[in-house]
Formats: sequence, C-alpha cells, structure tokens
Amino acid sequence: MTIERINPGPIMSSAVVHGGTVYLAGLIAADTTVGTKGQTEQILAQIDELLAAAGSDKSKLIKANIWLVDIGDWAEMNEAWKAWIVPGATPARATVEARLAAPAARVEIMVEAAAD
Amino acid sequence: MTIERINPGPIMSSAVVHGGTVYLAGLIAADTTVGTKGQTEQILAQIDELLAAAGSDKSKLIKANIWLVDIGDWAEMNEAWKAWIVPGATPARATVEARLAAPAARVEIMVEAAAD
Amino acid sequence: MTIERINPGPIMSSAVVHGGTVYLAGLIAADTTVGTKGQTEQILAQIDELLAAAGSDKSKLIKANIWLVDIGDWAEMNEAWKAWIVPGATPARATVEARLAAPAARVEIMVEAAAD
Repeated sequence: MTIERINPGPIMSSAVVHGGTVYLAGLIAADTTVGTKGQTEQILAQIDELLAAAGSDKSKLIKANIWLVDIGDWAEMNEAWKAWIVPGATPARATVEARLAAPAARVEIMVEAAAD
Repeated sequence: MTIERINPGPIMSSAVVHGGTVYLAGLIAADTTVGTKGQTEQILAQIDELLAAAGSDKSKLIKANIWLVDIGDWAEMNEAWKAWIVPGATPARATVEARLAAPAARVEIMVEAAAD
Repeated sequence: MTIERINPGPIMSSAVVHGGTVYLAGLIAADTTVGTKGQTEQILAQIDELLAAAGSDKSKLIKANIWLVDIGDWAEMNEAWKAWIVPGATPARATVEARLAAPAARVEIMVEAAAD
C-alpha cells in the first residue's frame, strides 16, 4: 500500500495518508497569545486545511485525541469544537490533561479521518 | 469507504467503524463512586457492548490507550483487565497518568478493534 | 480480516498487525539507568526489531505518540529521534508530558506503521 506524506519535516509530517485513512499530527495554535477557545479555533482551521490537502474533510472524522494543559478548560475547548463539528459526524474522542511541548500552548489535537 | 457511527452525539460518537476497524471513544465508568478496579470493570463491560454493536468482540482488540488519574492504580486496573481479556488476543497497549474531564473518574480507556 | 499478534502476553501484545497496518505497544527502555536520550535510543531499537518482525520498517511509519515524564526533555528525546528517523518518511506525531507506569522510565513511545 502506498504512503502519502503532507509536509514531511525533519521530526514529523503534518499528515500521513495510508490505507484509506489520513492521520494528522498533534496540532497546536500558531498564535498562542489567545485563550483556549481561540487556540482551539486555530487548530480546527488547520485540521480543515490538512484534511482538504489529503482529499478529506471534517465530515469524515474517525478519531480525535485532545490534550488540555488545564482540564478545567474542557467546556471552553468544546465551545469551539461544537461550533465546528458536523452534526451527526462526530468522531470517537478522548480528552485528557497534559503539559505540552510549547509552553504557551493550551490545547493540542490529533485526529484521524477517512481519506476517501 | 463507508463510515458507520454508533451513538453519534453532539461532541463525539461512542464508536466509529471504517475500513475494517472499529474505533471506540475514550470511556469512563457510569458509576464513579467505586474504586479503580470497579470503574475498570464497568468500562470493559461498555467496551463489550459497543464492540458487539459494531459486529466485533474483545478477541479482536488491536490497540488500547489507558489513562489513570493515579498511575499507582496500575496493578488494580490490571486485575480487572486480566480477568476480562481473552488469553492470546491482547492488544498493543499503553498506559499513562493523566487528569480526566470527569473529576471522580479514576480511569479512561480508548480501544480499537478489528470490525470483521 | 486476519489479526497477527507478536509476543502476545497476558496484558498486551508487543505488536498487532491488521488491515495493512502494524500497531506497536507503548514501549519503554529495558535499561532505565540512562537518561532520556539513551532511553529513547533503546526504544527506537525495539521499534526497529518489532517492525521487522511484522515485515515493516521505520520508513513506513504512519503515526507516533510520545510521552515524556518531563516535557523539558523534548529536545533531548528529539536528538535520538532525528538521528534515527528516515528523512522524508516522518510520521504524524504528538508528544505530551505524562507520568509512566515504570517509575524510572523517562519516555514511552507508541507507533503505527504500514505493514506492507
């Protein structure tokens, strides 16, 4: 089976497509001066772009892992999530608390979607 | 490829089936007044139900991610896990410590299984 | 679809192959008396062995989840990662901080790769 890589960098690729599934990297916001909701919105916009580059879209989400620096931000993150998600097309999802590599990042999201 | 969603809610689906794999959401116990072993048993029963709804079962587990609020509960969680798992059919698994969204939850488990 | 399990133990398998994808367990170093870079090198060698046993190799990596006991070790872990990874064949990856089950382990890595 072929493997397609989107933005393959020295450490990770932004996305990898294999076997009918697209796997996105764990994404954080480019502008971390805003709060958790704003950071989540930026991440979800990145997900839209990367899924489009892979020939997919958010209606085809399969799985999501979300990490919050403060699990108390769960409701705030969900405001952005619920405004973005396609009703009836929600993925399997898990959200836990964790410190992230970028000190000012408040949230990181890693998703998988159907590629076709 | 088709995508089947089980209990698609406003935030997440309980399970998603795609490409011969069933992806379950991160599950916590319904009754969090009991300890880690009891909570794990409840989660594993939920996994049985969701896998059955997807036409799969625990003998087809592929992957599991487990989060414990206190990693010191590892042995206690494993008592329930070992009593439940099918010998010879254990998944690839990782267990780490993390705070969870539900304050009284002690353990959360997210699995993938073969759908056919 | 068939499921192949490598080293199926009482709790987990070292690797599971299904549907063209190989799923490895979360791996820690066998010798945890060394630092994060040395532990990462040991884990990456284990990944090489397990991928080979599954008929795959590191050029076919799809996805990686990395947990660090201290996210401040991110650069040190990456030294080993960058020396090992195949240029242009980097996976989708996420790294977060978490306490691990083995007290002296500093890093745990769980990967998925194309099996063919």
